[in-house]
Amino acid sequence: MGNSFGKIFKISTFGESHGKGLGVIIDGCPAGLVIDEEFIRSEMQRRKPGQSKITTQRKEEDEFQLLSGVFEGKSTGTPIGMVIMNTDQKSKDYGHIADKFRPSHADFTYHEKYGVRDYRGGGRSSARETAARVAGGAVAKLFLKHFGIDIKAYVSQVGHLKLDTPYHKLDLSKIEDNILRCPDAKKAEEMIDYIDSIRKSRDTVGGVVSCVITGAPAGLGEPVFDRLHAELGKAMLSINAVKGFEYGSGFEGVSMRGSEHNDVFYTDQTGKTRTKTNHSGGIQGGISNGEDIYFKVAFKPVATIMIDQESVNEAGEAVTVSGKGRHDPCVVPRAVPIVEAMAALVLADYLLISRTNKL
Amino acid sequence: MGNSFGKIFKISTFGESHGKGLGVIIDGCPAGLVIDEEFIRSEMQRRKPGQSKITTQRKEEDEFQLLSGVFEGKSTGTPIGMVIMNTDQKSKDYGHIADKFRPSHADFTYHEKYGVRDYRGGGRSSARETAARVAGGAVAKLFLKHFGIDIKAYVSQVGHLKLDTPYHKLDLSKIEDNILRCPDAKKAEEMIDYIDSIRKSRDTVGGVVSCVITGAPAGLGEPVFDRLHAELGKAMLSINAVKGFEYGSGFEGVSMRGSEHNDVFYTDQTGKTRTKTNHSGGIQGGISNGEDIYFKVAFKPVATIMIDQESVNEAGEAVTVSGKGRHDPCVVPRAVPIVEAMAALVLADYLLISRTNKL
Amino acid sequence: MGNSFGKIFKISTFGESHGKGLGVIIDGCPAGLVIDEEFIRSEMQRRKPGQSKITTQRKEEDEFQLLSGVFEGKSTGTPIGMVIMNTDQKSKDYGHIADKFRPSHADFTYHEKYGVRDYRGGGRSSARETAARVAGGAVAKLFLKHFGIDIKAYVSQVGHLKLDTPYHKLDLSKIEDNILRCPDAKKAEEMIDYIDSIRKSRDTVGGVVSCVITGAPAGLGEPVFDRLHAELGKAMLSINAVKGFEYGSGFEGVSMRGSEHNDVFYTDQTGKTRTKTNHSGGIQGGISNGEDIYFKVAFKPVATIMIDQESVNEAGEAVTVSGKGRHDPCVVPRAVPIVEAMAALVLADYLLISRTNKL
Amino acid sequence: MGNSFGKIFKISTFGESHGKGLGVIIDGCPAGLVIDEEFIRSEMQRRKPGQSKITTQRKEEDEFQLLSGVFEGKSTGTPIGMVIMNTDQKSKDYGHIADKFRPSHADFTYHEKYGVRDYRGGGRSSARETAARVAGGAVAKLFLKHFGIDIKAYVSQVGHLKLDTPYHKLDLSKIEDNILRCPDAKKAEEMIDYIDSIRKSRDTVGGVVSCVITGAPAGLGEPVFDRLHAELGKAMLSINAVKGFEYGSGFEGVSMRGSEHNDVFYTDQTGKTRTKTNHSGGIQGGISNGEDIYFKVAFKPVATIMIDQESVNEAGEAVTVSGKGRHDPCVVPRAVPIVEAMAALVLADYLLISRTNKL
Repeated sequence: MGNSFGKIFKISTFGESHGKGLGVIIDGCPAGLVIDEEFIRSEMQRRKPGQSKITTQRKEEDEFQLLSGVFEGKSTGTPIGMVIMNTDQKSKDYGHIADKFRPSHADFTYHEKYGVRDYRGGGRSSARETAARVAGGAVAKLFLKHFGIDIKAYVSQVGHLKLDTPYHKLDLSKIEDNILRCPDAKKAEEMIDYIDSIRKSRDTVGGVVSCVITGAPAGLGEPVFDRLHAELGKAMLSINAVKGFEYGSGFEGVSMRGSEHNDVFYTDQTGKTRTKTNHSGGIQGGISNGEDIYFKVAFKPVATIMIDQESVNEAGEAVTVSGKGRHDPCVVPRAVPIVEAMAALVLADYLLISRTNKL
Repeated sequence: MGNSFGKIFKISTFGESHGKGLGVIIDGCPAGLVIDEEFIRSEMQRRKPGQSKITTQRKEEDEFQLLSGVFEGKSTGTPIGMVIMNTDQKSKDYGHIADKFRPSHADFTYHEKYGVRDYRGGGRSSARETAARVAGGAVAKLFLKHFGIDIKAYVSQVGHLKLDTPYHKLDLSKIEDNILRCPDAKKAEEMIDYIDSIRKSRDTVGGVVSCVITGAPAGLGEPVFDRLHAELGKAMLSINAVKGFEYGSGFEGVSMRGSEHNDVFYTDQTGKTRTKTNHSGGIQGGISNGEDIYFKVAFKPVATIMIDQESVNEAGEAVTVSGKGRHDPCVVPRAVPIVEAMAALVLADYLLISRTNKL
Repeated sequence: MGNSFGKIFKISTFGESHGKGLGVIIDGCPAGLVIDEEFIRSEMQRRKPGQSKITTQRKEEDEFQLLSGVFEGKSTGTPIGMVIMNTDQKSKDYGHIADKFRPSHADFTYHEKYGVRDYRGGGRSSARETAARVAGGAVAKLFLKHFGIDIKAYVSQVGHLKLDTPYHKLDLSKIEDNILRCPDAKKAEEMIDYIDSIRKSRDTVGGVVSCVITGAPAGLGEPVFDRLHAELGKAMLSINAVKGFEYGSGFEGVSMRGSEHNDVFYTDQTGKTRTKTNHSGGIQGGISNGEDIYFKVAFKPVATIMIDQESVNEAGEAVTVSGKGRHDPCVVPRAVPIVEAMAALVLADYLLISRTNKL
Repeated sequence: MGNSFGKIFKISTFGESHGKGLGVIIDGCPAGLVIDEEFIRSEMQRRKPGQSKITTQRKEEDEFQLLSGVFEGKSTGTPIGMVIMNTDQKSKDYGHIADKFRPSHADFTYHEKYGVRDYRGGGRSSARETAARVAGGAVAKLFLKHFGIDIKAYVSQVGHLKLDTPYHKLDLSKIEDNILRCPDAKKAEEMIDYIDSIRKSRDTVGGVVSCVITGAPAGLGEPVFDRLHAELGKAMLSINAVKGFEYGSGFEGVSMRGSEHNDVFYTDQTGKTRTKTNHSGGIQGGISNGEDIYFKVAFKPVATIMIDQESVNEAGEAVTVSGKGRHDPCVVPRAVPIVEAMAALVLADYLLISRTNKL
């Protein structure tokens, strides 16, 4: 179990890295939504491998087929099924690790949990699985766009290099201007160079993706367990390689005093209740308050490195895992659309649920 | 919706701060478990207000009644229902804020979401709700104890004061030795003094709770969406005042290289597959690997301060919210048992689910 | 597990026949609903034992306490918790069957499933559990009433005595005019006499409850698995002693030809699309079509009889189960409000879900 | 929503009658199960159209592709994805009913619910959707076979022609010996002739499918709402054209007295607790008792007839719906494998859940 996400607007995914194909079913997408296939395709392009020198050189075309749930260009309210066939299977690449446990991969844990495992390219534990999420998330984005809700993620840290500027002082329209997906061109260059040097040393490094949601109405979130940020946190933590999540003031807010941290309410010119600051990150008591929602997601360094490593095999014998294949030196540039996709799925779901809150 | 947590071992809670009572139903607790009521009571004592000079002076006895699901001292497999009656209601205390939105509280968002709200003491958004979680979590702990799984949380930061010692170099048996629940006596004293000074300045401050789970077998966690750490993250983020969650190397792991961060496998003397380091925090690919599971939870400063604050009321008029009542200057000492309770609920649930993974 | 029902408007129940108490949590009831406690009380009176000579003479007052989720008479959108304390516990009555398996009761199956069981009065398998459903269903009824949806059930068969008149030729306002809850006074008398004779012979007999839902809009039901009638069927089959469910033409429809059975559409004077006949029972393709929804529920004869029966005990030894206690000779008069309660819960849930179907 | 079924062993389906394709994801199938593709294929053959003179002459090959979740012939515990491409789309056939509401079809209700609908062949409301269920159910059957649980359904009524012999007096190995799937050869012939005459009159007729589950252990079922027969009932009522469900003594049991109906326990030679009769249909208190589980499912006459019918269109105008296309005169022969598939899904799910009942 565990391969579905959402309550009303819900996705279920399937597929392994080197199996025949993968896919997603979106159940609960309201009827009447214009399904722009070109947009879905463009989102998948943002995630696909082989985009630039700082991503894996693996080629996957990620062509999806829309099989159901759409009629004459509009969603019908029935499940939207999409499949993506794997073309670049090359499973022979993986014979050398068939019975070895790669350090900090999921080989050992899948082996312990299931007994059987598809070792080719990590099977289900591969980030290839996120292609299905991006397809599902693209539909969620189309739904949100209809209601004026926009989601933008960007790279805010690579290794020790941080972009400290708060999101509202950045020009988020520039995110796609560089291969890193960082809106600060200068910082981006520095970070790209760093990733490139890491790549040359056959190593990998971690990073942080920040995300901003604008246009979300007040009232989204279902206390007490399904608080909006709790679901966003789960969504983000379910992405490969994620180690941490914080929203609003996050871990730094800990050091603040209540008198500094509290967001003071005022009435704006339009008569709307607003807050002067936004340490709350747009969420109070687990419910959106109409301000921008923002959060950060920490990604660890990719586990696959091009350097030989010690390990053990299924028989418990000491073995060497040698670095082979085509992998990302840093996951964050391609993680940006995945973070957005998962955020979109949460927002779409909670927007629908909020229709049931009042009489 | 949103008031249930878990898939098999599931709790549903109800109750407001100043209503007649609150409670919890535990559904899915396996039959045959010895239900030690004394233990449940002791867990609730750890959470209850009025414990020390650094917690609120409010008196709540938190006496629970066990209404069902237990026969001759053992769980029967049917739902375990527990209620806690509110005795210290004093709802008149709250008249002065009936139509005001307290800064960084949930007053405004509940108002927007539901239209109607119980303003007394924050109603459902009050941390009083966590009493029901602790009662449910205590039963989960009893279940886990049966399988040798132990959960210990402690305070590792208050404001800017950090306890940097990694958990395995601390003596976790000393957590309950001081009113802060910090295993380092010296640091604890410093932090207690700091909280006390904050309290005297009528302000509040945030903190961090760390948590360690020992004895969990490999194989817990349900990829891809219901990864073990994703569910733990959601559980923690669903607790009042939480702003961030990280496990294993967390946000710091971002700066590491893959070659440093990867946890190398080896075979120990007993033939068991182990890792030399534990940057993974006991979880790889979303599944426990048999090492200790550890994570951190960030709590913001309590929103209720004893200092007057500007705000607006339901009519959008500028008002002053004056600090009154009895509140915690820092939430972390009482958050320790809540973190443990939520972690126990996740582990109990996933332990049961793991029984269905193999043929 | 298995003690929650519903997706958005959801109830969770707990409690045994002879435990301290039972209760229900309603999660997902929209905010702003006037909660008429007097109405809830009156619904519970319709279910409670000791109402008449044809029901058990057991006395249970079924006084509920409303603990949460309601403020100043209105629902707040937070969980509504209600408890009913057991006053007439008399558990000594049950010592004689502690280790015996009563024929066609749940004693044996609970023993096999859980190992431990509360044998007093059937524990959780007792129809006492339905008190919590009626409390929850009463709130659902209040919600539905707000939207003009009305649910009426009545007794349409006792043993071999059938009321063959179709529901729309009956005066449903007369259901409560007799102790049987059958709108045909003459038939009712006959059936009451029959039950009374069965009671005197220390035996029991089965019956059928019919139910009609008026005022439901078109569009309720979630194909393909959560069709409206599938959920209604599950709801009814979850009631104690139910052996069958049919809607619309039901089992009799099998013998009809398509040309007879099809409900021809026409446009009525108001411009509304209607059907000339209603073999569909108001549901087509799993979705309500705006016509009356109707269905039947079959109840087996109560398993507890006042006649000695052979059986075995936990040790597998032959034993005699002697008829003792106070039980219903026929369950249907008291089943009427339970059928209504479960139907109300389904309708309330699906009405809320339907708000998410379109853009 | 509504397109997933099951809690642990769960299927999610997608696809319309005349879209590009349909499919199923099975999540929660335990790892290590040998996935016999030939068996899945043979199950789908039993459901596919064009099998005999008494089924529709439409040709659909129903070739499925297994895309994921299976490695080297065994399930891996990850989701099993299967797709079936539609080859015989001929959507031009349906232009004549694009804006008409066919009587007793789902055209009107889908229109009301979603606004948008794929009118070609009924879209999602078509029985074509059950192909995905049969594929999923075949995997569930393989799982159950591993534990000695067998499911056999057969036709027991067509129109007014009933096979009254109880299941245990029939030779169920003969079900597949005739095109009707009725184990009594003589009755089968009579029923086949009847269907053929109905077909010639361009009309349709209903029928009943009976089902027997042998080898199920005691202990399956999750009271109170998720009783085994409640879930079986929901599963059956979710199949197209189903109008009723009964198990054990069913509607006939209503007329019996408790003293007749009760199933007396005894200890058999092997020391096992058994019942002398089985009016309970193998389920007591919602939990299997180890005896055979049996139930009946009522199917209405197929709504598509070859006779002209009055109706209205989307504009509310009177129109004639003329009978065209290739349809089944009676649905039951092809419903047999669907009933089995849904029963298998319920049993597989509950077998897994039962692993969590005891400590």
